[in-house]
Amino acid sequence: MDTFSLSRRMAAESAGTGLLVAAVVGSGIMADRLTDDVALALLCNAIATGAALAVLISVLGPLSGAHFNPAVSLAFAFRGELPMGELAGYVTFQVLGGLAGTMVAHAMFDLPILEVGTTARSGWPQWFSEGVATFGLVALILIAVRVARPNVAWLVGLYITAAYWFTSSTSFANPAVTVARAFTDTFAGIRPTDVPAFVIAQLAGALLALIAAGWLLRPATRAV
Amino acid sequence: MDTFSLSRRMAAESAGTGLLVAAVVGSGIMADRLTDDVALALLCNAIATGAALAVLISVLGPLSGAHFNPAVSLAFAFRGELPMGELAGYVTFQVLGGLAGTMVAHAMFDLPILEVGTTARSGWPQWFSEGVATFGLVALILIAVRVARPNVAWLVGLYITAAYWFTSSTSFANPAVTVARAFTDTFAGIRPTDVPAFVIAQLAGALLALIAAGWLLRPATRAV
Amino acid sequence: MDTFSLSRRMAAESAGTGLLVAAVVGSGIMADRLTDDVALALLCNAIATGAALAVLISVLGPLSGAHFNPAVSLAFAFRGELPMGELAGYVTFQVLGGLAGTMVAHAMFDLPILEVGTTARSGWPQWFSEGVATFGLVALILIAVRVARPNVAWLVGLYITAAYWFTSSTSFANPAVTVARAFTDTFAGIRPTDVPAFVIAQLAGALLALIAAGWLLRPATRAV
Amino acid sequence: MDTFSLSRRMAAESAGTGLLVAAVVGSGIMADRLTDDVALALLCNAIATGAALAVLISVLGPLSGAHFNPAVSLAFAFRGELPMGELAGYVTFQVLGGLAGTMVAHAMFDLPILEVGTTARSGWPQWFSEGVATFGLVALILIAVRVARPNVAWLVGLYITAAYWFTSSTSFANPAVTVARAFTDTFAGIRPTDVPAFVIAQLAGALLALIAAGWLLRPATRAV
Repeated sequence: MDTFSLSRRMAAESAGTGLLVAAVVGSGIMADRLTDDVALALLCNAIATGAALAVLISVLGPLSGAHFNPAVSLAFAFRGELPMGELAGYVTFQVLGGLAGTMVAHAMFDLPILEVGTTARSGWPQWFSEGVATFGLVALILIAVRVARPNVAWLVGLYITAAYWFTSSTSFANPAVTVARAFTDTFAGIRPTDVPAFVIAQLAGALLALIAAGWLLRPATRAV
Repeated sequence: MDTFSLSRRMAAESAGTGLLVAAVVGSGIMADRLTDDVALALLCNAIATGAALAVLISVLGPLSGAHFNPAVSLAFAFRGELPMGELAGYVTFQVLGGLAGTMVAHAMFDLPILEVGTTARSGWPQWFSEGVATFGLVALILIAVRVARPNVAWLVGLYITAAYWFTSSTSFANPAVTVARAFTDTFAGIRPTDVPAFVIAQLAGALLALIAAGWLLRPATRAV
Repeated sequence: MDTFSLSRRMAAESAGTGLLVAAVVGSGIMADRLTDDVALALLCNAIATGAALAVLISVLGPLSGAHFNPAVSLAFAFRGELPMGELAGYVTFQVLGGLAGTMVAHAMFDLPILEVGTTARSGWPQWFSEGVATFGLVALILIAVRVARPNVAWLVGLYITAAYWFTSSTSFANPAVTVARAFTDTFAGIRPTDVPAFVIAQLAGALLALIAAGWLLRPATRAV
Repeated sequence: MDTFSLSRRMAAESAGTGLLVAAVVGSGIMADRLTDDVALALLCNAIATGAALAVLISVLGPLSGAHFNPAVSLAFAFRGELPMGELAGYVTFQVLGGLAGTMVAHAMFDLPILEVGTTARSGWPQWFSEGVATFGLVALILIAVRVARPNVAWLVGLYITAAYWFTSSTSFANPAVTVARAFTDTFAGIRPTDVPAFVIAQLAGALLALIAAGWLLRPATRAV
């Protein structure tokens, strides 16, 4: 990893998060325009998001680690696998990249470059959903980089495709993406006032995953 | 496998079965709420379940074997690949984990923590379906761990996605999951009185698979 | 391959073809019962079929080669990769297995054990479609076993999923499966009088693939 | 690669582009005939296209590189990985193969062998979409052949499946395919007068990808 300079790793993190958000927001707009069946729209949204994630992680993983997600960077920093001094840079570029992704999606679909989300996403069931979704995502990543590293990209893509469905919040599971989705008033949007609670729930889930995965993997470091 | 203590293996089996059930039940609720087309709901349910299975087996397989299914543990015990003395522990934690999974799904979707299933699932065609589905699942696993071990997780995920469709029972194929689904009155639910016959059919299918795979693989133990 | 006796290879071919047909016919019945949207029914049918194929070829390929298809066995026989003396056995057990598969599907869905298909599938566009579909399938297999052998199962599964859509006949591409589908009067059925022309078109496509792949691969036998 | 003569590599490029176009156009016709829901038709179209791409690249990649796309051939030529003298041949056979693909699809669906497209696809949002889609495709390929070569086929298939959804143009991203789609008046068609702007946007995206990927990968040539 150290053969890549910080500037290029930041470029990879922001481009990856941006393209991920463009895929999430763009596919939501497209699907929503083409059908009245919300389940079908969510299915198209979920498939596009999962596929985009698998591709972006496969291609940019060797460059920056392909976190695209402050909760993931935080977990790696806690485990000593990301220098603490780089955490702020990772998070900043993830958030900026995510915003750029919303702008790109809006430009592709002829919408105002930024909007304010109006979709209410709130309440304990959704917060619990975000906690569960982020717990699963971070635990998956922490375990998989040890026991199934060549498959991490496919696993994250499949996990998010599933998590769109098994959580009531459709599984944002990513603070940078959550912020970016507050700037669109389309299928994937979220009301800005609902963002803080989502982010708190996500970080709580990530913290729990850190503890659980740490316990599960501790004495026996298996390479498989 | 022996580098992981029994407590951690039980944790992996219960967490895996729980998250599998949460994915099955949760995605059923989500899909059912969003569309009136039952085929579309089942498609979303099947995709989410298959994806979740592939992820959970990939990540927890190296820890506990990732059975998540008493019929699978039983088959491995019969073949001497799971110590008979651990079978009861595996099954117990699978069932408990499954129940916790239903509770997690209900909490995410703002439902009573446990319900009683009311969906009638009964009659010879469905029992035969459960036998066929579990026969296929167990035979697949027993053969695949010999000839295609690195792909077992993908194969089980794809198998269940297909089996949702080619059986009239939507392929429970798992006693622990069947019990857990008796405690939800949503898309994935089953009437408690219909559980015993499903479990018997599943165990019969598993037994048949044990015999068939044993015959097919006997003298020639191929590692591919 | 020679470590497996002929009886077990025939068992693998008939079981594989049977389970493939059960998946094709069963998923067609299920989807057709649950929705009025024919595209959605075909999508569920195509996904279940592709997934089943990938699983069956992965698991049974190391045992019998996992042809499940007389057109494929014929092509391998012509190339000297299947002893001519075994061709008749392969084809016979594929056809018998396919019929058993229809029976299993009917039993799972509470239908008469065998029916006579009434769906008209005829005319030059459909015959041309069968030729194209089988050409593609056989060419894919002949080339892939040379240049992408570990991925043959995934490739065949994906190919058939796509071919359901890009041919007007929904891509039977398999004489044994075509015969088996003449004995069901459900979504996947075909009128028995339409079978011979389908089979002729399939064999013509296979023959063409044999020539094309032979030319493409001739002097340079590359293992990649 | 040099063990394959130019004639066979041209055959691979034209056959691959032709079968890709047949899959795009054919699945569009099929889906459009079977449903009134445009999102569902596009989903079937996207899945068939992605699956076909993964298969064609896996099988023909070892023969010709499996570009099937003038924008990709151009990028490789600029990077010195395709002899400049072969670029014209690649592009010519891709365009001819694409046209043949439209004809094959029309023959399979009983349509006039060639038609003139009438679907208007124009305006800045769609041009920007084509730029983004081709940027992503070419950047993906240029990076992936370095860091994830064994997975290039799957990644391109998944990328295009996603890009159908996250761009307002449904992501043609390929000048040869764009030309071929001007000769069908079905779901996948495009008005001939709209072709030049699409091709220009695609080439602009490819050029940008060349620059971006070049910068990202320059000093550190990592084989992973």
